[in-house]
Amino acid sequence: MACWEGDRAVRTVIITGIPGVGKTTILKEVEALAREQNIKLTILNFGTVVGELYKKSNMNLHRDELRRQPIDVQKKMQLKAARILAKKVRNGIFLIDTHMFIRTKSGFWPGLPDSILSILKPSLLVLVEASPEEIVKRREGDSTRMRDEMTMYDVMSDLDWARASASSCANKSGVPVKIVLNEPGKQREAANEILQSINELGG
Amino acid sequence: MACWEGDRAVRTVIITGIPGVGKTTILKEVEALAREQNIKLTILNFGTVVGELYKKSNMNLHRDELRRQPIDVQKKMQLKAARILAKKVRNGIFLIDTHMFIRTKSGFWPGLPDSILSILKPSLLVLVEASPEEIVKRREGDSTRMRDEMTMYDVMSDLDWARASASSCANKSGVPVKIVLNEPGKQREAANEILQSINELGG
Amino acid sequence: MACWEGDRAVRTVIITGIPGVGKTTILKEVEALAREQNIKLTILNFGTVVGELYKKSNMNLHRDELRRQPIDVQKKMQLKAARILAKKVRNGIFLIDTHMFIRTKSGFWPGLPDSILSILKPSLLVLVEASPEEIVKRREGDSTRMRDEMTMYDVMSDLDWARASASSCANKSGVPVKIVLNEPGKQREAANEILQSINELGG
Repeated sequence: MACWEGDRAVRTVIITGIPGVGKTTILKEVEALAREQNIKLTILNFGTVVGELYKKSNMNLHRDELRRQPIDVQKKMQLKAARILAKKVRNGIFLIDTHMFIRTKSGFWPGLPDSILSILKPSLLVLVEASPEEIVKRREGDSTRMRDEMTMYDVMSDLDWARASASSCANKSGVPVKIVLNEPGKQREAANEILQSINELGG
Repeated sequence: MACWEGDRAVRTVIITGIPGVGKTTILKEVEALAREQNIKLTILNFGTVVGELYKKSNMNLHRDELRRQPIDVQKKMQLKAARILAKKVRNGIFLIDTHMFIRTKSGFWPGLPDSILSILKPSLLVLVEASPEEIVKRREGDSTRMRDEMTMYDVMSDLDWARASASSCANKSGVPVKIVLNEPGKQREAANEILQSINELGG
Repeated sequence: MACWEGDRAVRTVIITGIPGVGKTTILKEVEALAREQNIKLTILNFGTVVGELYKKSNMNLHRDELRRQPIDVQKKMQLKAARILAKKVRNGIFLIDTHMFIRTKSGFWPGLPDSILSILKPSLLVLVEASPEEIVKRREGDSTRMRDEMTMYDVMSDLDWARASASSCANKSGVPVKIVLNEPGKQREAANEILQSINELGG
């Protein structure tokens, strides 16, 4: 639901997508498109806030090492990060870039459990998808990230798990899930779809 | 759980199914079967109550236009409708005909989020399904409804999303989900399955 | 989350898997492995506690008859059993052997609804899987259990439903879901994976 401050709506939109769908590219496109259309939009990265929290606690880790920490540690950081992010949300549209789930050594760990959704209070969930073939290609080509080796089966499992999780997040928060397909060369269309679905929330 | 009034149980059964599964036909069959067997059963339509709320607020819309309204507006109507329906539930079996989710311009919007389930307090969730081929056929043939064009892929996505959502609703409310397959020419069998599963709840 | 008593962690791990995945075998292996490695680990069976509750109430049923009881009765027993189990959890690791869902006459009934998760407070959910072919083979060969006849389609539905449900349980409790594949002749590997994922929780 939109919270109103004066006569303007505050919108928190959570944007997720499994590694390799091309979320970063889409987000850049969304940012550019919003600028062109004079829409006030801020993108906040959940992982960056978590990384800063680790740094403060004298644990300086590469972003792909974060998910290799013990779950007990990660859970504390997750909760702190959500509270920090919730405070940053003011007038306008805030896109929180995060994960529906993270593959940890203890299994699929939810990035948006009930406790976090209660803090972030989103108006919309966006799930970026791509074809399994595209995802595998992008994962193989990305040498700057320490990604685990994954087969096509894993990618399809990830896509399914993300949808199941998104559906349960939607039920928890009562908001829609916009599934956006990132097709090669159509980033602008995908970005436009995201802005449209935010616009259709009303307010 | 059944709530007891005197010596008779009050049962709220939520019945859902994606567009094109033939839910309306099944419900007519359930009604007829209940009459034959002298079972007190009332069918309530969630969408009808929502439509009346729109009418009262001077927005007279076709039922397929409802889901094209801004989500903020739809959410308020959804909550009001649930409260109205909850008050109608008395002695006997009440079937609430609604959607597990609705395809809106902002994405898959849950018809049974936690907030609504807390109000409706169902004893059972029924999910009517049909083969993707049958669904596509029914959607194409239905000219009285303003349905968006959909491919086979969309239908299969809808079926999956409904199941994922049903599973999360079941976990929220602690009640079973009865999946009923509507096979061509076997509406009576499907209707009978629904009555049986209500009966097996006990009480 | 781990609760601490003195300097040792209390861990509740819920282990599930649809009938036929070979959960019992895996659990024996986990027990043996824990013994070898001097890890304090206790396995508690949810169904056994439920069976004892039925016995006390003068309903002495075979374990496969439990899920044929009216849901109202089963729900009461489920809640009581969860409370009994929660009291048994002390220092060390406790594996609760139960079902993600149960096929009842009223449909898929959740074994881990929100109400039960709130009582059990798990740190980890384990979902044992096997290939559909293996599951069908095991179900057919198991003459000691009164199992309903099931087709390959049912097995695949069960696997999907278990995953969707696990994902929603993860979101509710904020803990990871470890999916462990039980491959023929590799029970020890599967058992080891489970112990590893518990270890990686931290504490």
